[in-house]
Amino acid sequence: MKSFLMLGQSNMAGRGFIDEVPPIYNERIQMLRNGQWQMMTEPINYDRPVSGVSLAGSFADAWCRENQEDTIGLIPCAEGGSSLDDWAIDKVLFKHAISEAKFAMQTSELVGILWHQGESDSFNGNYKVYYEKLLVIIETLRKELNTPDIPLIIGGLPDFLGKEGFGKNCTEYALVNKELEKFAFEQDNCYFVTAVGLTSNPDGIHIDAVSQRKFGLRYFEAFSKKQHILEQLINENELLELSYSRTYTKTEKMYINSMDFALGKISYDEFMAQVMKINND
Amino acid sequence: MKSFLMLGQSNMAGRGFIDEVPPIYNERIQMLRNGQWQMMTEPINYDRPVSGVSLAGSFADAWCRENQEDTIGLIPCAEGGSSLDDWAIDKVLFKHAISEAKFAMQTSELVGILWHQGESDSFNGNYKVYYEKLLVIIETLRKELNTPDIPLIIGGLPDFLGKEGFGKNCTEYALVNKELEKFAFEQDNCYFVTAVGLTSNPDGIHIDAVSQRKFGLRYFEAFSKKQHILEQLINENELLELSYSRTYTKTEKMYINSMDFALGKISYDEFMAQVMKINND
Repeated sequence: MKSFLMLGQSNMAGRGFIDEVPPIYNERIQMLRNGQWQMMTEPINYDRPVSGVSLAGSFADAWCRENQEDTIGLIPCAEGGSSLDDWAIDKVLFKHAISEAKFAMQTSELVGILWHQGESDSFNGNYKVYYEKLLVIIETLRKELNTPDIPLIIGGLPDFLGKEGFGKNCTEYALVNKELEKFAFEQDNCYFVTAVGLTSNPDGIHIDAVSQRKFGLRYFEAFSKKQHILEQLINENELLELSYSRTYTKTEKMYINSMDFALGKISYDEFMAQVMKINND
Repeated sequence: MKSFLMLGQSNMAGRGFIDEVPPIYNERIQMLRNGQWQMMTEPINYDRPVSGVSLAGSFADAWCRENQEDTIGLIPCAEGGSSLDDWAIDKVLFKHAISEAKFAMQTSELVGILWHQGESDSFNGNYKVYYEKLLVIIETLRKELNTPDIPLIIGGLPDFLGKEGFGKNCTEYALVNKELEKFAFEQDNCYFVTAVGLTSNPDGIHIDAVSQRKFGLRYFEAFSKKQHILEQLINENELLELSYSRTYTKTEKMYINSMDFALGKISYDEFMAQVMKINND
């Protein structure tokens, strides 16, 4: 299994509304819970009760299309509202992420780090020290995980920031963006992913579900091609359609029906009828 | 802050349907996420997408009524479907729980362990070796956390098991119950909590939300009085009414409104009007 570490703040954790996009179920996508793997469902990174769709879902599904014989594991460590200082190497978020990654690495090969952070540093001139602080974090992370050349995918901050709702205070987001891009351009094995064209929830700070799906595709394109993604992909909608239109496997059908039964959405008789049907298909 | 470790399988994690009981918001109840504390909302122990109300919510709220000047922290480590063997001291669940507890103990005093497990061992004669296996787990846990005398609260398995749905296979639940009770009676600082009278979700295995609330009160009674609870409390409904009828603090009102705004349930103008109102109250 190949695994990816999810680091950053709320737009990495994911706040897209679950019911605004078709779900992704794929038995080859796993996520870490209690130090071990289970099949992925969204929200993957449950840092808050408002957690929802993140970029990791479509990222992982795109990865699966390119790696038909392997399994992907997602290690959710993003924390809503966290500033870059909250990720300093002597702080809990960093140490906990290292700890989670090490649990994951007992049964997987860590092959990538997904980073999205900066909203909480888009004021007070924080952008001036962003680069040097991020450098210490990433260098220490690679060292402690013994993955010196691991690719780091860095997403940009979206252009809806600085305008309304909870996003209004992010007045310096464009300056942080420049630092993120510069970092990815200058550092080895770092790739920048543009947030151009992404849209927000009504709160003005969180990337909406549809845009998270597109962002995940761009992250995967950067990882797969080992290059910066500076424009939106021309085929984002078609790629998402591939995710949504895939026929579920037996395991995935069982998973979905078991969940529906556990949630009281179908009766035991309906559930058993479904199980019979799945087994006979 | 005083903290409690939540261990076991799905009925410790909680599967009560969220909308079947009034919510509990209390700024003096914290939960661990990413190694650090945040205000509690349910589900506390998000091990599965079907996670819901657990016994920990009403447990913590009852604790707060008796400890007006202190804060309680919940450390969610329960894993749905886990057998006692999955909790063996060389397995990931045990090691991850130790790791989470140690993060929590950097900023809190661990004062209790909440245990509920046994459904996944209620067949195949597993009850015959339950006691000795649990003993190794608890002795090692107390030793590794350096809390030799920490109280362990052990809940019983409910009488709806062994009958229908996902609970049908738990044919030996009563025999496991005897072992759980014997363990609590014989071991130091262990207290048994009866599940008598608790009712289930339609799936026949998971304690429903109302019963989880009651179970939490019993767990707290056992912890507070340092005694076994072998019958339901006579005032369970009144105690729950105390939780539900408490007036929210400013912080709690802000938390709820911020969540509603983030979820798109209220507009920015409505949110700001609420903020004004809360600040003027």
